[in-house]
Amino acid sequence: MQRIKLIIAYDGTDFCGWQLQPNLRTVQGELEKSIARVTGSPVRVHGSGRTDSGVHALGQIAHFDVEDRFASVLWQRALNSLLPDDVTVLQAIPVSSDFHSRYNAVHKTYTYTLWLENNFFLPWRRHYVWKCGPLDFEAIDKGMQYFLGEHDFSSFQNTGTLIKSTVRTIHDFKRYPGQNAQEMVLEICGSGFLKQMVRNITGCLVTIGRGKAKPESVRSLLQMKDRTAAPATAPAQGLCMAGVYYGDEGCGGTDTGRNQSQDSGVGEQI
Amino acid sequence: MQRIKLIIAYDGTDFCGWQLQPNLRTVQGELEKSIARVTGSPVRVHGSGRTDSGVHALGQIAHFDVEDRFASVLWQRALNSLLPDDVTVLQAIPVSSDFHSRYNAVHKTYTYTLWLENNFFLPWRRHYVWKCGPLDFEAIDKGMQYFLGEHDFSSFQNTGTLIKSTVRTIHDFKRYPGQNAQEMVLEICGSGFLKQMVRNITGCLVTIGRGKAKPESVRSLLQMKDRTAAPATAPAQGLCMAGVYYGDEGCGGTDTGRNQSQDSGVGEQI
Repeated sequence: MQRIKLIIAYDGTDFCGWQLQPNLRTVQGELEKSIARVTGSPVRVHGSGRTDSGVHALGQIAHFDVEDRFASVLWQRALNSLLPDDVTVLQAIPVSSDFHSRYNAVHKTYTYTLWLENNFFLPWRRHYVWKCGPLDFEAIDKGMQYFLGEHDFSSFQNTGTLIKSTVRTIHDFKRYPGQNAQEMVLEICGSGFLKQMVRNITGCLVTIGRGKAKPESVRSLLQMKDRTAAPATAPAQGLCMAGVYYGDEGCGGTDTGRNQSQDSGVGEQI
Repeated sequence: MQRIKLIIAYDGTDFCGWQLQPNLRTVQGELEKSIARVTGSPVRVHGSGRTDSGVHALGQIAHFDVEDRFASVLWQRALNSLLPDDVTVLQAIPVSSDFHSRYNAVHKTYTYTLWLENNFFLPWRRHYVWKCGPLDFEAIDKGMQYFLGEHDFSSFQNTGTLIKSTVRTIHDFKRYPGQNAQEMVLEICGSGFLKQMVRNITGCLVTIGRGKAKPESVRSLLQMKDRTAAPATAPAQGLCMAGVYYGDEGCGGTDTGRNQSQDSGVGEQI
């Protein structure tokens, strides 16, 4: 058997999320269908993690196993000729069988893009940003600091998944201007993320940026371990899984993310 | 009566083009509906020109008339609060009643964006580029020169519109890198454009860039005045109406287009 690692980008708008579901269009489903068209038999694709409906990816990682006779297939070319336009393979790399996209992941980076202008909107950004209007980024910067380090993120976890621990570590949390002057990107790197945790953290920070909560409220929200105490979840479309890191790779947030992008010839984040 | 001039951006993906059509979703239709919600009575919106289904705009110009009591309405804010997310008013300006968005237009600029990479694709660009793969831009540059100046563009006009003359003047035709490293933008400025003329010119240039026709073939195609002699029409989604210019404004292509963008706070072309 040969294991193949994929770096995948997708536009989540028309997908019911990553994970395979009967009779629904999912990214995993489209990948498995395309791989099976090459090998002639069903294949299971393992992703580094799920994304919800409407959430995008620039650096989702997945792997699958094929018989040795398919090891020499040019998988990037083969899959990109079969996949629909809203999912693309940025790289396909033969790896050893002890690589596992989910179990070996050390860090993950997500970006969330906010639209800050009230007077107008660029229509082609509607599936990729949250229209927030003006925000107080001095307050948001302060709020972001409280998320750094190891915390129990129960207050920022939506229910619906069985997990052993709600403790996660945020290694890095930064913000930078987006591709348009009216946009700001929040980029968070952590050991892992609970269900809708990035969207819940973003919802909390936007509430702070609107002056409806104090930056210090993050500390008490973390201590309360109660989802109902925290502000509402940010909408899906602003979120993008930017990168997944393995082994010795640093977290590095933007830098690592951008280096990875350059490797695959991609000059842009969403 | 007060005449209002609008600068409008839209994402053409989910519209059946600009022009009002019964039971179809059109940009003109959405604008008229929103204006009528403010004034309480039907309003006619006049655009500088039509765009086809799937074609975008960053600088479409339109005008409409309202009774004097609506002259003080903050039209940009009012319309943007009523319009759907895929159309936005970048500016709304009270103008004198001798301004006409179509009859007064002196130049128009369109951009067409090509995707040049065969191995992968950025999924969120699927509605805004034509996936061409690698092209010979030295040949395309030569071909572009033949379009400059005054010509009978019958060979580059699709049928379906009654017009007096098929003679148009191309003032400027340039290309520059797009928002991603894998993209190239063609920008054409002219006195006016026949039906699908920009898409037909682009289709011809891509054929030249693929080595399937010589740059010099443009000259003979113009002379033949026969649409069936020229290559196929480029797809709608790569095209964007970038700007419309009136009176003393120069053509200026990119510069004019970008200045206009900056005026309205927009830092990006599609």
